[in-house]
Amino acid sequence: MRDKLGAVTQPPVVAMIGGGQLARMTHQAAIALGQTLRVLAVAADEPAAQVSPAVVLGSHTDLDALRQVAAGATVLTFDHEHVPTELLQTLVADGVNVAPPPSALVHAQDKLVMRRRLAELGAPLPRYREVATVADLDAIDELAAEIGSGAGVGLVVKASRGGYDGKGVTLADDVAQARAAAEGYLADGVAVLVEEKVAMRRELAALVARSPFGQGAAWPVVHTVQEDGICVEVIAPASQLDPEVATAAEQLALRIADELGVVGVLAVELFETFDSALVVNELAMRPHNSGHWTMDGATTSQFEQHLRAVLDYPLGSTTPLAPVTVMANVLGAPTQPQMSMDERLHHLFGRLPEARVHLYGKGERPGRKIGHVNIVGAAGGSLDDEAYVAEVRERATRAAHWLSHGEWTDGWSAHE
Amino acid sequence: MRDKLGAVTQPPVVAMIGGGQLARMTHQAAIALGQTLRVLAVAADEPAAQVSPAVVLGSHTDLDALRQVAAGATVLTFDHEHVPTELLQTLVADGVNVAPPPSALVHAQDKLVMRRRLAELGAPLPRYREVATVADLDAIDELAAEIGSGAGVGLVVKASRGGYDGKGVTLADDVAQARAAAEGYLADGVAVLVEEKVAMRRELAALVARSPFGQGAAWPVVHTVQEDGICVEVIAPASQLDPEVATAAEQLALRIADELGVVGVLAVELFETFDSALVVNELAMRPHNSGHWTMDGATTSQFEQHLRAVLDYPLGSTTPLAPVTVMANVLGAPTQPQMSMDERLHHLFGRLPEARVHLYGKGERPGRKIGHVNIVGAAGGSLDDEAYVAEVRERATRAAHWLSHGEWTDGWSAHE
Repeated sequence: MRDKLGAVTQPPVVAMIGGGQLARMTHQAAIALGQTLRVLAVAADEPAAQVSPAVVLGSHTDLDALRQVAAGATVLTFDHEHVPTELLQTLVADGVNVAPPPSALVHAQDKLVMRRRLAELGAPLPRYREVATVADLDAIDELAAEIGSGAGVGLVVKASRGGYDGKGVTLADDVAQARAAAEGYLADGVAVLVEEKVAMRRELAALVARSPFGQGAAWPVVHTVQEDGICVEVIAPASQLDPEVATAAEQLALRIADELGVVGVLAVELFETFDSALVVNELAMRPHNSGHWTMDGATTSQFEQHLRAVLDYPLGSTTPLAPVTVMANVLGAPTQPQMSMDERLHHLFGRLPEARVHLYGKGERPGRKIGHVNIVGAAGGSLDDEAYVAEVRERATRAAHWLSHGEWTDGWSAHE
Repeated sequence: MRDKLGAVTQPPVVAMIGGGQLARMTHQAAIALGQTLRVLAVAADEPAAQVSPAVVLGSHTDLDALRQVAAGATVLTFDHEHVPTELLQTLVADGVNVAPPPSALVHAQDKLVMRRRLAELGAPLPRYREVATVADLDAIDELAAEIGSGAGVGLVVKASRGGYDGKGVTLADDVAQARAAAEGYLADGVAVLVEEKVAMRRELAALVARSPFGQGAAWPVVHTVQEDGICVEVIAPASQLDPEVATAAEQLALRIADELGVVGVLAVELFETFDSALVVNELAMRPHNSGHWTMDGATTSQFEQHLRAVLDYPLGSTTPLAPVTVMANVLGAPTQPQMSMDERLHHLFGRLPEARVHLYGKGERPGRKIGHVNIVGAAGGSLDDEAYVAEVRERATRAAHWLSHGEWTDGWSAHE
């Protein structure tokens, strides 16, 4: 809060739209800094609403609710990207300090806007076409022809808005499949982005933060492992990565943050091609799954950094605390284990007393992100040592699979 | 929660008596584990009550309030030691799972009970006398005669109950001063413990946790720096400490935890004498100031460990993340700085982007603990390297002094 002369008189109040796990973990960070995080949650049992006393219940598409959570807040920021731009512009006109500003956030809300802008900036992108109406569908044939020859052409069809965690994305093996998918999105009134499927070695993510003052800070680039479009594992930093590529990725992310006027955390999801080139896949402007490792593996977590950035504090050190940290998501199993989560936690702690567990207070549903586990590699190891990295990965994925499935991936049983 | 067959069906609810900073930081740990921390706070603006939705307002001396916060909780534990034993015994009779149990907790509530029990166990203690009534005052002369000769005899007069942070403790240079101090406490109806003032090199603390199952875990022994009876700095692990003395301290603390039936975190405050012997000073059975470094410097923080212990989970790894971590308390300055805490935080982050800040949401009053700062030493350093340790200490104490006083201890000014 600032008084009439601009002096800060009270600890800041940060309003966050959305009461999911990102808000929940941001609340933990806000507690340390003596701040208040006030969340707009849809329901009282959402992850952040369970653990915070400063909750406004309402929808992120309801201007009154948005105004209520913003009232008197130092800044308004986001746990998700689903607030309509026009409502944010109204808040800005009201005098609300929105971070990231709507003009930046739109690049994480609309994939077509993002692609056009990144193309202008000369960022490395997959070849793509815009399909705004059925009249544009022939552009898919054009793209296929440009990409190349033959029977099978990999295409990715994306709804320009509203997608997340693999939703709103369709993989197509040929033009006919791609046209059908695009027609489906168009029928829902959503413009479409059609891209070449990039042949890649793996996916990376470059996570940075930027403050209104213009300061930028980058964590080391990480390797993200996806299954069915959902991030399941993060190796931080990415191992076996050419230092020049790592630097290029960090600089690209910092440049995008700067050019777009991002305020807060920006995640740039990248493909690393087989010849070590980078291609930008997606942007997110909030704390991101690829940054959960920072809670235990970096000097400053992405949640604290997001708060520092939106409040225009100097940013925190992004130095890792260990040679490698591996994050594995706990995703709801196809069938809920008989053993309760509490009992699974007991067993996990018995086998892996070093596991850093983060649960979100969510019910278990198949494929749902209900938590994550970080394993911080022992000091003295090296990111270049494949066995060392593999061993940390094995512990992280074993722990997460146990928590979700109630099964040990190594077949261990207490009763043998 | 357990159903009739004993199966765990719901995430645990931990009731904590007291809404201070220890409860506040325990809430942060409970969020990660998917648990609910329900606090009994005296006022809605207490540190934990500010940040948690699960708050019962009431006094820790009011049985109804205690029953209300305990209702349906998996376990009841403490942010402070001030709940009268008879009320705890009533809760136990009600069927409440109290951890640590009253029979253990009394050793942290009553210094006479503690001294007698530790003497039975053969733990190293200062020489002492009990002064329960004025009839016992001559025991002070007896103790002085036993300690030794001459004009000046250092004596420490302690109220057996109710003291904290230097309160309830009087240093006396001679028998007359000691008698006067003891008479003061006796007049307030409090029995007195009179001890020799131990000539010491420094103060240490051994922090351990114990679960009902009987598992124990020890963090490395730390060096605590006190001013006016208040902990101001902790060097973790203690530098320049004979490994045998360190091991002896850890084993002593684990043994005390076991013999007393402690459940949760136990801090054993120790004196290291000039000939490297250990003497037990005080016990605390809860997360403790000497363990705040674990929030950023150890695999498992004392707050998570306390939750794990009272819930009888397997305990977490106590491995440090760095060669040294230094904690410095932020104590309210004699006069409040002109610059607001928020502005001081801005400046701190500008100079020390690696500082880990923990604020408690408390008003600034002289000498009051309002937060702490951790500095985690860089990897590759060594605890045996005096310059390395001194540099980390300098940063931690500089950061904490800046936050409290708005003055840089190194004279730095942005305007020079």
